Amino acid sequence: MNVELTTINKLKKITIIGVGLIGGSFAKGVKLAGLVEEVVGFGKNTKNLELAVNLGVIDSFSTDIGHAVKDSDLVFLAVPLGAMKSVLLDMKPYLSEQTIITDGGSAKSSVILSAQEVFGELPKHFVPGHPIAGKEKSGVAAAEANLYIDHRVILTPTVNTSQMSLETVKHLWTSLGANVEIMNAQQHDEIFAATSHLPHLLAYSLVDMLNEHEELGDVFKYTAGGFRDFTRIASSDAVMWRDIAVYNSDAITKWLKNYGNAIDELTKLVEHKDAEALYRLFDDAKNARDKHIVNK
Amino acid sequence: MNVELTTINKLKKITIIGVGLIGGSFAKGVKLAGLVEEVVGFGKNTKNLELAVNLGVIDSFSTDIGHAVKDSDLVFLAVPLGAMKSVLLDMKPYLSEQTIITDGGSAKSSVILSAQEVFGELPKHFVPGHPIAGKEKSGVAAAEANLYIDHRVILTPTVNTSQMSLETVKHLWTSLGANVEIMNAQQHDEIFAATSHLPHLLAYSLVDMLNEHEELGDVFKYTAGGFRDFTRIASSDAVMWRDIAVYNSDAITKWLKNYGNAIDELTKLVEHKDAEALYRLFDDAKNARDKHIVNK
Repeated sequence: MNVELTTINKLKKITIIGVGLIGGSFAKGVKLAGLVEEVVGFGKNTKNLELAVNLGVIDSFSTDIGHAVKDSDLVFLAVPLGAMKSVLLDMKPYLSEQTIITDGGSAKSSVILSAQEVFGELPKHFVPGHPIAGKEKSGVAAAEANLYIDHRVILTPTVNTSQMSLETVKHLWTSLGANVEIMNAQQHDEIFAATSHLPHLLAYSLVDMLNEHEELGDVFKYTAGGFRDFTRIASSDAVMWRDIAVYNSDAITKWLKNYGNAIDELTKLVEHKDAEALYRLFDDAKNARDKHIVNK
Repeated sequence: MNVELTTINKLKKITIIGVGLIGGSFAKGVKLAGLVEEVVGFGKNTKNLELAVNLGVIDSFSTDIGHAVKDSDLVFLAVPLGAMKSVLLDMKPYLSEQTIITDGGSAKSSVILSAQEVFGELPKHFVPGHPIAGKEKSGVAAAEANLYIDHRVILTPTVNTSQMSLETVKHLWTSLGANVEIMNAQQHDEIFAATSHLPHLLAYSLVDMLNEHEELGDVFKYTAGGFRDFTRIASSDAVMWRDIAVYNSDAITKWLKNYGNAIDELTKLVEHKDAEALYRLFDDAKNARDKHIVNK
């Protein structure tokens, strides 16, 4: 595709807003792949930004957002969902018309709404995105150029998103080894509410419930590997998940209610010792999981 | 303790009822540690029992329960909870008064009730037990002498359990490297309903719900490591978990209802976008998990 290649050749400066695991791994990856001449980081924590430079994640940084995004070909927003709107507001006066804006937020409709509110209409070069990657560790020290290899990246272009900006962002992710998929924002938010946001909230809730029932005593010492794996995601960053719960509230509420209904049904089966129905439910779930999920 | 040592020295024959992962690992362990002269396996599947002999898990086997338990010093029941009562009934005519009976069932009150029903009163040498060990693999081929090292084994003696039989069973588990803890059956069932049975049922339910919502499409392909870990236990054996749900129905029902209430509360917080309360809940859970659970 000529359009794409022409664009890629032109990339001189990329700005990373929020240099943590997600933003830092993207930065390190595009630098290593030689896809850009200069990667500039923006953040509030100077120490973190200095570390990022020392680790070779970014070339330079600025704590002045105007300076950081000036003449940038592409700005990648890797901040919590709750910070997206204020960052967009802050950078707006300094963006050129050609600058591509993309992000790594776990919910997409809310970011799109913020962009609409900030810019009046949705910018032509705005490409909402969500890399499905993460680790238990966070922060720039954990950033790796290969984080996205074989991971899925969902892009959810708006009605205004230009083909050129979509192809550019897609090309960058593909160059980092990711598998890019396009869908609309609402579909994205539904799917990830069900497959990611819901299990995180369920795990937090279980740990919280056990922690609050003092009659169980020192109950955690009786947990085993199953509990450890089930609740691993309850060790995730609380600010990030507060924001996801708030900024994908509609879809998560829907799936929490669906799940609550499923639990009510299950409770009845257990209470009535309905062995046959319980077996069917467990066996169906086991077969579905064994078929679809590869253990690692 | 003289009583204990005297007893242990006398152990000539141990019978394993159900030679799978749990029973097989116990058998292999006590053989390897030289704690018994002869280990006999009982089951219905001759091929499985022949495999167990070939793997050095048991010395010999019988598909005749009378022959298998005759003159045995200790019988270990490692069958699903739903089979406990019929096995006790079948072996009853052939047990000597001195034979210690112990088991590995994941719920204890139901096994104790079965013993009471079968024997009229609770046998003096009955030591209900629950080794907290397991692997994703099951079956005798996965049996290992070191399965129980550093794992917890809960013993829940009844009012009739003799000190001698309790000490003997405790000594065997300790010799296999396990950490033995004594508690009453009801407390055991409550704790494991909350920490093990509940998460298993929650994981089965989530996979089942996603599997049934066709509007989500091929939703499993969008799942990542968090979902894989959260649902790992939904690949557990459906018969075993049907039995646990049925045979620990009271305690599990109670915790399912508690959890259902917690989910209702959480749903309200998400629906009302109560960022502060959500943060508190997630942060409390994260801190509790980080404090109590060691990741592996």
